[in-house]
Amino acid sequence: MQKVNFKTIVDRYETVFFDAFGVLKNHQGLLPGVLEMFQYLDERKIDYYILTNDASRSPLLLAESYQKYDLKQITEDKIISSGMLATEYLKLKVASGTLAYVGTELSAHYLEDLGLHAISIADVDLTLSEDIGALVFLDDEGFDWSNDVNKCVNLLRQRNIPVIVSNTDRSYPTSGKEVAIAVGALANMVEQIVGKKFIKFGKPDAQMFIFAYEHAVGQGGTVDKNKILMVGDTLLTDILGGNKFGLDTALVLTGNTLPRDADMGIKALGIIPTHICDSVAI
Amino acid sequence: MQKVNFKTIVDRYETVFFDAFGVLKNHQGLLPGVLEMFQYLDERKIDYYILTNDASRSPLLLAESYQKYDLKQITEDKIISSGMLATEYLKLKVASGTLAYVGTELSAHYLEDLGLHAISIADVDLTLSEDIGALVFLDDEGFDWSNDVNKCVNLLRQRNIPVIVSNTDRSYPTSGKEVAIAVGALANMVEQIVGKKFIKFGKPDAQMFIFAYEHAVGQGGTVDKNKILMVGDTLLTDILGGNKFGLDTALVLTGNTLPRDADMGIKALGIIPTHICDSVAI
Amino acid sequence: MQKVNFKTIVDRYETVFFDAFGVLKNHQGLLPGVLEMFQYLDERKIDYYILTNDASRSPLLLAESYQKYDLKQITEDKIISSGMLATEYLKLKVASGTLAYVGTELSAHYLEDLGLHAISIADVDLTLSEDIGALVFLDDEGFDWSNDVNKCVNLLRQRNIPVIVSNTDRSYPTSGKEVAIAVGALANMVEQIVGKKFIKFGKPDAQMFIFAYEHAVGQGGTVDKNKILMVGDTLLTDILGGNKFGLDTALVLTGNTLPRDADMGIKALGIIPTHICDSVAI
Amino acid sequence: MQKVNFKTIVDRYETVFFDAFGVLKNHQGLLPGVLEMFQYLDERKIDYYILTNDASRSPLLLAESYQKYDLKQITEDKIISSGMLATEYLKLKVASGTLAYVGTELSAHYLEDLGLHAISIADVDLTLSEDIGALVFLDDEGFDWSNDVNKCVNLLRQRNIPVIVSNTDRSYPTSGKEVAIAVGALANMVEQIVGKKFIKFGKPDAQMFIFAYEHAVGQGGTVDKNKILMVGDTLLTDILGGNKFGLDTALVLTGNTLPRDADMGIKALGIIPTHICDSVAI
Repeated sequence: MQKVNFKTIVDRYETVFFDAFGVLKNHQGLLPGVLEMFQYLDERKIDYYILTNDASRSPLLLAESYQKYDLKQITEDKIISSGMLATEYLKLKVASGTLAYVGTELSAHYLEDLGLHAISIADVDLTLSEDIGALVFLDDEGFDWSNDVNKCVNLLRQRNIPVIVSNTDRSYPTSGKEVAIAVGALANMVEQIVGKKFIKFGKPDAQMFIFAYEHAVGQGGTVDKNKILMVGDTLLTDILGGNKFGLDTALVLTGNTLPRDADMGIKALGIIPTHICDSVAI
Repeated sequence: MQKVNFKTIVDRYETVFFDAFGVLKNHQGLLPGVLEMFQYLDERKIDYYILTNDASRSPLLLAESYQKYDLKQITEDKIISSGMLATEYLKLKVASGTLAYVGTELSAHYLEDLGLHAISIADVDLTLSEDIGALVFLDDEGFDWSNDVNKCVNLLRQRNIPVIVSNTDRSYPTSGKEVAIAVGALANMVEQIVGKKFIKFGKPDAQMFIFAYEHAVGQGGTVDKNKILMVGDTLLTDILGGNKFGLDTALVLTGNTLPRDADMGIKALGIIPTHICDSVAI
Repeated sequence: MQKVNFKTIVDRYETVFFDAFGVLKNHQGLLPGVLEMFQYLDERKIDYYILTNDASRSPLLLAESYQKYDLKQITEDKIISSGMLATEYLKLKVASGTLAYVGTELSAHYLEDLGLHAISIADVDLTLSEDIGALVFLDDEGFDWSNDVNKCVNLLRQRNIPVIVSNTDRSYPTSGKEVAIAVGALANMVEQIVGKKFIKFGKPDAQMFIFAYEHAVGQGGTVDKNKILMVGDTLLTDILGGNKFGLDTALVLTGNTLPRDADMGIKALGIIPTHICDSVAI
Repeated sequence: MQKVNFKTIVDRYETVFFDAFGVLKNHQGLLPGVLEMFQYLDERKIDYYILTNDASRSPLLLAESYQKYDLKQITEDKIISSGMLATEYLKLKVASGTLAYVGTELSAHYLEDLGLHAISIADVDLTLSEDIGALVFLDDEGFDWSNDVNKCVNLLRQRNIPVIVSNTDRSYPTSGKEVAIAVGALANMVEQIVGKKFIKFGKPDAQMFIFAYEHAVGQGGTVDKNKILMVGDTLLTDILGGNKFGLDTALVLTGNTLPRDADMGIKALGIIPTHICDSVAI
């Protein structure tokens, strides 16, 4: 496929959905040209949202991680995270009772904001689990893997409760070339052991896109899907999900998909982006 | 779980989403009490929609299949089918070119209504496949399985085009105790052989529910998800999908889930309906 | 990885196991240099066997397909097919009764040789299925796919009988660049629909290798696994299976694995052959 | 299916293969009647072996765990463990270099007995991983899950080396009704994250049965598979594996398969044991 400059295509759209890691930032901070790109969008009055499979922090804290790099326009309402979908689900479906969560205290903020009683899986007493109404996977930190993932398995053997996975990613980049196991992989392992069906939120699932779409429309954005561009670095989540939702898609080569692998990946998977760009730099 | 009478719960909702097969009808026609149930909903001004993983006929023809049983209130706009999602996708993403389809001529109506040139896989000449822009699985009839499913595999080895599956079910009931292989199972087989990712529409995917939800809201229905009840006979599609979308759910025991298996299935899968009813009869 | 000439490595072994398609022959006949290679092995008194996931014909008929190309040394006892494993299983485990088979009359020879009554799935009457003791998938030809694969599904809903799959391949090359769906793919589809566990024979399963190994040892061959080389064109079957069984392995680039893809495939899958050769030509 | 007394069937066989957990012992020690049953087999000169998916200790130590209960006849040579298959593989395929292992120091004895240099994954320095020739999953204890399983993922991103899983079980019973995650589940999680194919040893794989069979034949036992009975408590490992290897099989109801679930499990999975017994008690 022919690569194009991001500037030459973005003008055609009224709204842009961006993936975060590998598109706008990496472990070392913002990617080159991202500041200027957002200025360009602001000048052209092109609206934008960031769609991220991240439930480790609130949208407010996620927004702050951009603002510290002088991206003042990335406010809380520009962030759509898979953690917000978990919150929405719990608000509608788990009205009362205690929630057990897998993650840090920071990640549990979603649950506590609902007025629910949230308890870390580390603090659950399996002999007194009768009042636990759901189990939520939020983050890969904040608990002892060996002890507490085993506790999840035994909790689910005792109690038939819904299990919510608020980040479906299996791994995420840390420093340099290394990755870390994400909470989605731990949740998959528990799901296979107990043989139940967990409720999972995150790209490429359509619910993530409809959440962003409704959010955009609610803030006066376009209702015409042909006027929305999804930009991502991963074929199996960003591009597949965007395509299926009916959006145009742009694959950038600054993250998971290396420049040398793009054509091969597109051909192997049959997931075809509308555009390919080296980066989002203008 | 305690079973409840459908009448005692349905009053709490403003809108009801029904699955079709095993809930409202089976191969012998309408299930007992369905006519009276819809009269009851009409009297109470409870709105309703039928959500079906069916792409073999248009909503108009699907509606006629109810009207012939004196269910005059089931009009075209009450039907939400997975075939409509395929149509929506193709309209947005495949603007021009020839589509190859797997199914009957009747099922191809979705494609032709878009003004696209649709050709049965049976009529595709693999030496002249350059103008084919997508492959769509619509129905399990209307083609020669051995010859034409092989043709799908070889078409996808030649051409990197999107593949749309408009019915994700693997089988459906036919006469008495027998089932038939549905087009979703054929599509899965081809997907595994060619190693690509197909774009699939149907319950339990959220897109089916959001499509129905937007449809209901657009016709003046409730926007409050707590006021919508999803009624189905299958845990893995109707109930899982409804739960995940944030709806209350009712499992009925007139179809796929036999009365003796309901408790076991709920426990084994961890998919928990809000209510269990013997049937939708009032 | 460094490529080596087949001649320079084969001398180190006392026995060679060859895959058939893509190694010794393709749809146009023997591959170049195969005749001379076998003469070389005979001169050096290096023993050899052909291990093939093929249940469509008897070892005798498979051997004849080599002999017609002047490979007189490929006799029946040099052939180890997955069909032979099915025969072995049925002989041990299904002592009596009628077997239903999916395949041609020619493929059913395995079953009839056991003195069992074999009936094509095409001729099975589902209302009289009580005497059917097992279902065997043999070949992708000889039956009507739509009608008879549906019949398999309904037979397995009626009767809890063992299902034997005697060729685990999903596709096989036919003419030029085209492939055909193999019976293993049809069996997988039925297995997923009915939710049961089928008994499958073929590479990379260890049983195929132990069958060949016992055969070789029984004919006076080496008992030292370090002296056996498995030669194949497919990482996921020939090389993975050979490695796991403790054999040295040689990947050749005349079949499924294209020269340009070999290094990438080895790295992506982590399946590492002992040697890589362009072909088996000496 | 009709249940039978173990005594009435065992007389027909010359050799019995037993699964360990849930058949002969559980977390509280030997199951009732096991001592007397082995005396009975000894009197009748029926040979026996224990086949266990356990790589946490050597056969010698595993044998001692029976001898302390006065089962003096369970000597080292009566034990066939999946750990022994890993040892066999490493001896044949990984002749030199350092092995990284996941497990306790006790479990590493298999590796050190080969004269190989074995290093715990906990002690691996990822910046100096060039000399590591393979990664072996042995036990779920002896390392820090969060830190060291992440280290496995990053080691496999750096180095294309074979990965051996010497216990394919996903969980095992501990105290009372609780289970613990087994090393097989951790290995599956890593395999899915890195996208490679691991080499796995344990039931239901045929290699476990052929290893036991060769062991039995080598010690003068029967070569007639019809004279061997596999006894297990798990349909998906013991019974499926035994059936496929051509053995008669007996399901006992003292472990994983509860008496109330046996018929349902057999029907749902289509895995049919030759016999069902309450226990191995005579």
